[in-house]
Amino acid sequence: MTDGESGSDTTRSGRTGRRPGNTDTRAAILAAARIRFADTGFDKTSIRAIAGDADVDPALVHHYFGTKQQLFAAAVEFPADPEATLTAIDHAPLDELGATIVRSVVGVWDSPAGPGVVAMARSIFGGGEASPARSFLLQVVFERIRARIATPTDDGRARMALAASQMIGLLTARKIVDIEPLASMPIDEVVAAVGPTVQHYLTGDIGTGGV
Amino acid sequence: MTDGESGSDTTRSGRTGRRPGNTDTRAAILAAARIRFADTGFDKTSIRAIAGDADVDPALVHHYFGTKQQLFAAAVEFPADPEATLTAIDHAPLDELGATIVRSVVGVWDSPAGPGVVAMARSIFGGGEASPARSFLLQVVFERIRARIATPTDDGRARMALAASQMIGLLTARKIVDIEPLASMPIDEVVAAVGPTVQHYLTGDIGTGGV
Repeated sequence: MTDGESGSDTTRSGRTGRRPGNTDTRAAILAAARIRFADTGFDKTSIRAIAGDADVDPALVHHYFGTKQQLFAAAVEFPADPEATLTAIDHAPLDELGATIVRSVVGVWDSPAGPGVVAMARSIFGGGEASPARSFLLQVVFERIRARIATPTDDGRARMALAASQMIGLLTARKIVDIEPLASMPIDEVVAAVGPTVQHYLTGDIGTGGV
Repeated sequence: MTDGESGSDTTRSGRTGRRPGNTDTRAAILAAARIRFADTGFDKTSIRAIAGDADVDPALVHHYFGTKQQLFAAAVEFPADPEATLTAIDHAPLDELGATIVRSVVGVWDSPAGPGVVAMARSIFGGGEASPARSFLLQVVFERIRARIATPTDDGRARMALAASQMIGLLTARKIVDIEPLASMPIDEVVAAVGPTVQHYLTGDIGTGGV
């Protein structure tokens, strides 16, 4: 640590032509958001509280970052906006959830955003429970999917965790450990092979008491 | 520990507290093994060649390390001897492969060897294709399982990769990312939930052309 880096996050972009004022404000908002989301979680954190911590108007937070979900994603440096995937999942028929999730998520991995997703995965695997990206994934992404499958007698948590285990392993096998022929399998074949597994976990008989 | 042990790294008798000969010999064999296995793979590497590189008698290699598989495991510092698991898989009925694999492997993760497995997984995730432990897993462990399911019209590689993706994700979700309720799910429930998936990948209709 030197005197120059006083615990703040990097402001590298500020030195490359952006206006320092905006950069500082954005950085202050992001820093406040990281602390708030880590301390109280997504649901109980408000834009207003983050704006208060950063000493800015809440409207400015929305202006810079959009929704609370988008601010959380920016704060944990989530490598891709999951909204398109989550919207697709929201609108998919219940019996097409598995194929929809696999096609949409693998499509992101295979896109230019893929390396960023791999880097995020490695940071989650390295950071365990303390990983900020893990919090976003569990509190926002998984919760949106779980809300679609929850019933009065099954909160869907075990189903979501099992589906997540398959998707995490698919990412790792395909993009990190490079296990062939899965690493180079066309996406249609991946959807055909893995979609039914995710579907089974989300809506089938998983044998653990959840119906 | 008794005075009678031979081939160990340390000894209480003798002129010095340590017998450098044995330690050096073991280290030389392991170093030669790492290079040979990395260069030519498990199948094409012989104990005799490794012994030649290390300038020792092949019998000494067997004496110190046992089988070629055990030497490979020692060279990559594999955290648990997979032979018990592989023997169980060899002897399981074909339609019980999934449950057998999940019960045996999760049993190791939940044992005192678990932290070593997690450390190995992290090293594989970090090292990608260059990881020595990855080579052992793919060339020895996966190959033994694949041999059980291969048919004249399906080499089983896609099946094995898909099953591996589920097991890798299960390890990651249960032991690294700690996704509840999967992280604390009793092993019987894990077998009930995930065993059918692994079974399906290994012997079911996976929709990718393999029959």
